[in-house]
Amino acid sequence: MTAPYRIAIAGLGTVGAGVVRLLQTHGDLIAKRAGRRIEIVAVSARDKGRKRDVDPGAYQWVDDPVKMADLDVDAVIELMGGAEGSARSLVERALMNRRAVVTANKALLATYGAELAGLSEHHGAPLLFEAAVAGGIPAIKSMREGFGGNRIDAVYGILNGTCNYILTTMRETGRAFADVLAEAQALGYAEADPSFDIDGIDASHKLCILSALAFGVQPSLADIAVTGIVNVTADDIAGAADLGYRIKLLGIARRGENGRIAQSVEPCMVPVGSPMGAVDGVYNAVFVEGDFVGTGLSVGRGAGAGPTASAVVADIIDLARGHGNVPVFGMKINDLAPASWAGPADVHAGYYMRLVVKDEPGVLAAVAAIMRDHDISIESVLQRGRDPGKPVAIVMVSHPAPRAQVDAAISKVAGLPAAVSAPHIIRIEEFS
Amino acid sequence: MTAPYRIAIAGLGTVGAGVVRLLQTHGDLIAKRAGRRIEIVAVSARDKGRKRDVDPGAYQWVDDPVKMADLDVDAVIELMGGAEGSARSLVERALMNRRAVVTANKALLATYGAELAGLSEHHGAPLLFEAAVAGGIPAIKSMREGFGGNRIDAVYGILNGTCNYILTTMRETGRAFADVLAEAQALGYAEADPSFDIDGIDASHKLCILSALAFGVQPSLADIAVTGIVNVTADDIAGAADLGYRIKLLGIARRGENGRIAQSVEPCMVPVGSPMGAVDGVYNAVFVEGDFVGTGLSVGRGAGAGPTASAVVADIIDLARGHGNVPVFGMKINDLAPASWAGPADVHAGYYMRLVVKDEPGVLAAVAAIMRDHDISIESVLQRGRDPGKPVAIVMVSHPAPRAQVDAAISKVAGLPAAVSAPHIIRIEEFS
Repeated sequence: MTAPYRIAIAGLGTVGAGVVRLLQTHGDLIAKRAGRRIEIVAVSARDKGRKRDVDPGAYQWVDDPVKMADLDVDAVIELMGGAEGSARSLVERALMNRRAVVTANKALLATYGAELAGLSEHHGAPLLFEAAVAGGIPAIKSMREGFGGNRIDAVYGILNGTCNYILTTMRETGRAFADVLAEAQALGYAEADPSFDIDGIDASHKLCILSALAFGVQPSLADIAVTGIVNVTADDIAGAADLGYRIKLLGIARRGENGRIAQSVEPCMVPVGSPMGAVDGVYNAVFVEGDFVGTGLSVGRGAGAGPTASAVVADIIDLARGHGNVPVFGMKINDLAPASWAGPADVHAGYYMRLVVKDEPGVLAAVAAIMRDHDISIESVLQRGRDPGKPVAIVMVSHPAPRAQVDAAISKVAGLPAAVSAPHIIRIEEFS
Repeated sequence: MTAPYRIAIAGLGTVGAGVVRLLQTHGDLIAKRAGRRIEIVAVSARDKGRKRDVDPGAYQWVDDPVKMADLDVDAVIELMGGAEGSARSLVERALMNRRAVVTANKALLATYGAELAGLSEHHGAPLLFEAAVAGGIPAIKSMREGFGGNRIDAVYGILNGTCNYILTTMRETGRAFADVLAEAQALGYAEADPSFDIDGIDASHKLCILSALAFGVQPSLADIAVTGIVNVTADDIAGAADLGYRIKLLGIARRGENGRIAQSVEPCMVPVGSPMGAVDGVYNAVFVEGDFVGTGLSVGRGAGAGPTASAVVADIIDLARGHGNVPVFGMKINDLAPASWAGPADVHAGYYMRLVVKDEPGVLAAVAAIMRDHDISIESVLQRGRDPGKPVAIVMVSHPAPRAQVDAAISKVAGLPAAVSAPHIIRIEEFS
């Protein structure tokens, strides 16, 4: 049998320990699938003495993770995380030393993807990152290889399990965002500082990577309009249900008719009966639309030790088989197209609008006139309850319209004397 | 740039013409993704004069497709279909001539997969077949590579678009099977001889291939218990809806607690709110359960020129990149485990049972006693209507029980004096 494939693992947190455990558990099986054994040569972590699920005693211990780039190994597995610091230094140095790199680091790829792709290409060192997006879904491989014959027109996804868990629990219990978040933190499903998840930052990193692969462009985090889930209310969720929708935090990248690509992360309403609408709890989903393949959806666990380790090991098997040397974003840096990004105002979609107004004669007519004046066609209007002189909610659903017009109309509505609070709007995605 | 990757295409039906059109449409894009151009050198089809969507005039015409194995090309693309005859001869001869082979031929792979894997391995000639299963879903690549670090415990799927279209239309319209089938034939969604689809044969070929990849065993078509959809009635579909289920034709391969693998194709009830329950019309779905990755589901178009061509071209890109040389079933023939197959009687599942009995005192008690005597625990019983002395339907749902016990109980029930017609049972799959 071919000589073992030698790896060094930097980071022994949840994911790193999961990878060690997977390689220990399925050593024989993986050797058959890779055509050779995978041998862990060295490990590194912040705290050598910390109690762990796995015993790192059998491997060489390296105090400074960046030094792992200089070891006599075939690949360095970076599982520390963070776009800067040791993780970035290690990945750069390993590539420069012509070591293959496997990483789960979405922040690093989204922020420095183009530079790292350049290093990988220049030094002929593969850089794989299946675990960076939706761990349990082979989303990177599918986009880069499985759909390689297509012009991709759209990639969407539920890309953050914490947000999907919170939105699912809000819907199932009718409870408020802050309440459910606090519970998720207590249960360990959300971090003590949850902003990375609930503000949509994590989802934007993942979308950025998917979008670069889908459209054959350099990743551009700056061109993603990001809205988190903190303003989604129990009323919005109930309103969505009345209209046959569920609210999901979606990352969306779509090529418009003008060829420009619009990227956003925002809460969206999706049909309750659609496969995407059925993706609940900590599950992630990735939806792809290509000109030959049509539409496809993949659903799986987004995070956790098992799914992430599974993705990391899939990359290691590819490398061990000699199949890892594929360009970072599916084609050479010079072949990536210069992307023309659309602004948020260019998005063309249907919208749910929730207005709280004083219940007085003529309010609905005034709102309707504003919509008409902005060329926004309304599909349905619901007024919840009647209470003359008191605040009532008007819920409207528009036909697809440019976001800029919707925003202009909404700001007019907010200026009506009868308006009680700022209107709330949520994009609708039908997946038709 | 590297020299073009030269291919010969055998078969210019829907799929073959689709592949030619895809390669013509996206030549530049594919060259970037493959690192070199793909060049069609020769084509072959039954009828040279037939009017086609694409003009084969630019390529060398070969009358005898089997002769394509002797051409000076890098790969032969077999898109004729059929487990025997020219397709089989061409694939065998091409592998023996050390040509890479791409095929969409599920019947061939399911029937002669082990022999072909042996030829591929012996001659070092890759054999790829992404298009053989669920064209729009990269199911083969995901199973062989994406989930490569896992012990797979189950693979399920909606693997035949024609059946799913028929079942979906029956549900949406309340119409009978024969009526919907006739319409599907008129619309071209079903063949004039529909038995290959509606009897579950096509789905069994696909399951056979997925199962071999999932469990690392040689494919065994003979060890699949196959039931088609011809006996699914409008009443069953309505009964399923009442209980919160939809009926789908599923291919299921699962490793039991005893280590034996049970393979079947049969109509099953799946929860209406599950992602699998939302897969309607001509869409396919593949569900995987691995010990590290957890559960995952992929949905996409199963057939048609576009999705199938997309899958074929993905394989060609892999080959052109030099990444095609992976063992046919994910590991070398000698590494495939000897499979221990379970019989249909070993399946442990919940069952829906529909009994038509004369409405007379004591019938329900007699049925309940039979179930108790066979150790079958009943979750719910519904009697539809009351009509003393006349036939009424009793619908029962059992907790999971061995199929052998369910069959024994059902045959006792059929022998009751009050029984009017043969009881009807449908497996329930919860995907929990």
